[in-house]
Amino acid sequence: MTNTLLILPGDGIGPEVMAEVHRIIDWYGTKRDLKFDVTEDLVGGAAYDAHGKPLSDATMAKAQEVDAVLLGAVGGPQYDKLDFSLKPERGLLRLRKEMDLFANLRPAQCFDALADFSSLKRDVVSGLDIMIVRELTSGIYFGEPRGIIEEGGQRVGLNTQRYTEAEIDRVARSAFELARKRGNKVCSMEKANVMESGILWREVVQKVHDESYPDVELSHMYADAGGMQLCRWPKQFDVILTDNLFGDLLSDVAAMLTGSLGMLPSASLGAPMENGRPKAMYEPVHGSAPDIAGQGKANPIACILSFAMALRYSFDEGAEATRLEKAVEKVLADGVRTADLMGAEGGTPVSTSRMGDAILAAL
Amino acid sequence: MTNTLLILPGDGIGPEVMAEVHRIIDWYGTKRDLKFDVTEDLVGGAAYDAHGKPLSDATMAKAQEVDAVLLGAVGGPQYDKLDFSLKPERGLLRLRKEMDLFANLRPAQCFDALADFSSLKRDVVSGLDIMIVRELTSGIYFGEPRGIIEEGGQRVGLNTQRYTEAEIDRVARSAFELARKRGNKVCSMEKANVMESGILWREVVQKVHDESYPDVELSHMYADAGGMQLCRWPKQFDVILTDNLFGDLLSDVAAMLTGSLGMLPSASLGAPMENGRPKAMYEPVHGSAPDIAGQGKANPIACILSFAMALRYSFDEGAEATRLEKAVEKVLADGVRTADLMGAEGGTPVSTSRMGDAILAAL
Ligand SMILES: CC(C)[C@H](C(=O)O)[C@@H](O)C(=O)O
Ligand SMILES: CC(C)[C@H](C(=O)O)[C@@H](O)C(=O)O
Repeated sequence: MTNTLLILPGDGIGPEVMAEVHRIIDWYGTKRDLKFDVTEDLVGGAAYDAHGKPLSDATMAKAQEVDAVLLGAVGGPQYDKLDFSLKPERGLLRLRKEMDLFANLRPAQCFDALADFSSLKRDVVSGLDIMIVRELTSGIYFGEPRGIIEEGGQRVGLNTQRYTEAEIDRVARSAFELARKRGNKVCSMEKANVMESGILWREVVQKVHDESYPDVELSHMYADAGGMQLCRWPKQFDVILTDNLFGDLLSDVAAMLTGSLGMLPSASLGAPMENGRPKAMYEPVHGSAPDIAGQGKANPIACILSFAMALRYSFDEGAEATRLEKAVEKVLADGVRTADLMGAEGGTPVSTSRMGDAILAAL
Repeated sequence: MTNTLLILPGDGIGPEVMAEVHRIIDWYGTKRDLKFDVTEDLVGGAAYDAHGKPLSDATMAKAQEVDAVLLGAVGGPQYDKLDFSLKPERGLLRLRKEMDLFANLRPAQCFDALADFSSLKRDVVSGLDIMIVRELTSGIYFGEPRGIIEEGGQRVGLNTQRYTEAEIDRVARSAFELARKRGNKVCSMEKANVMESGILWREVVQKVHDESYPDVELSHMYADAGGMQLCRWPKQFDVILTDNLFGDLLSDVAAMLTGSLGMLPSASLGAPMENGRPKAMYEPVHGSAPDIAGQGKANPIACILSFAMALRYSFDEGAEATRLEKAVEKVLADGVRTADLMGAEGGTPVSTSRMGDAILAAL
């Protein structure tokens, strides 16, 4: 079976960090005989500059065909004034929606060497390892009707939160499956005390649990209390299951807690394709960081670890994924640091490509 | 002018903490000749038990007439299975909606004596003093259509986020007014990159700023990034302005950061009444804590500080509000602690009423 990859570096620091992933991919091809058929294309502001759209139909079609998409980051201040439908984010959202990548896996992991970067106390975060499973193709991100409408002489901003039973069911299964391979605990978060969509969410998650995953420990929490508990004692969680909008906020909070923001990858998975592999896109949790773009300062680790997730979830190469993750840990333990990882101790930061060098050497 | 108060202790620890507020009110009457005409009534589960509804029409009518409502807390596990429309929370939401209390002020303040309770590092939170202004009567909490509907043979959970220009305009003004009395900075949070209601929100807030408050420093942030920044370096904020749902989450995160959850009050304000005072309700940020209810363990400070906010915002008694706040600070500095405030140092916690005694003595 060939391994096909579509690489979309995107905007800002996207191309820089992705350059290091290219080198890792090459290493696997020559040193481990694990070969990838790689195509590269445009997304976000870069695609808008070239084609007047944040994602061309041709790129969309390619994304549907490959085993996995690797995305860098999208966005930049030069695109702020664009019409909503042309903004860089719409390219990303189109990929998620049309590939039907309903399960967004966001590990929030605290790297021991970096625990002191957290604004939280060391004992609250050291060793933290939670997985947020965020629904990614429905909810208020995509619900209709939406828009800015005219009503009684004034404008009204409108969005719709919609969840069908089937949409909740499938993402709940993803969370329970993952939990079985981890700490066997799922905490589902919504606002069932305020929103009917939350009531249905809670009910369906409970039903999926009772019928198919009674062995997994399930709890429910209101999303506001969930945000509190994440800040108070995040280690109480194993897998957190939540909807698209709450997942956006809660996963960002969780990521920041770890102190390892420049380190965190994500996977967005859909249904299995004909070859048995899931539709999949991988991307770092961090953004395009336009302020440091093009200066060789960016930390490529989140993007490299996103490729490790691709090895694990798309290419069934769990052992190779672990090898890559271990290489990253070693480099950190050795004290190699990009600028974002410089603490009070001081020292000289390495560039994006020197970090790539170090990881390749550790491999 | 008489000062009228409706007290709704509600459920769980509500009645216990409110009992201490009663004593404070009596103190003001006898010692400062600041008299209040107080009525007490039911809300939440307590109202459901008595009338089969979480808020009776008679209580609703009274709330419309008084200068200020003081609410304890609502909810408890015995009401979990009730129909959505009968749940304790609906009583609270009805008060907010029918009194049109559109501006919810939630100070997130770190009490110096308690900074070590925070899961965040001391330097990140000590001295923290931010004010979250949350829109409270619109957005996805109240938008129609809503419900669980049948569609194509399956159930669909549905909620609607709606914001009119006028709704955004008025709460933005509240935030700018408050900022002028504080650090003169407002950061407005939404998801304008994903939601049209967020686009309108950003636009209207900017317009109100440019036309009426150009002297206040205004910034905009996506709500997910806002959550991150709250965890990273909360002191960057002065006033945070956000919608009902984001405000629910972000204010809880902010409250937890301070380590002073049992200490935080809130005010919900509407338009001025005939006597010039705003419609108003005051309540602690914490919940009904059914697990410790009835044991005399609860911390009454959040509820007492909510009364202090009433003195300031409803009764124009800013100096008396400050007196009460200072009394609370003194008691904390003296080391008086309810059970929730016991740290690693150990010691013996005081009861709810002993905390009340201490605050009265400090007054
Ligand atoms: C860039 C933006 C559209 C996106 C989102 O809101 O989902 C981002 O915040 C994320 O979490 O991946
Ligand atoms: C109790 C609940 C309805 C309420 C809300 O969601 O607004 C609470 O969480 C709050 O923040 O006051």
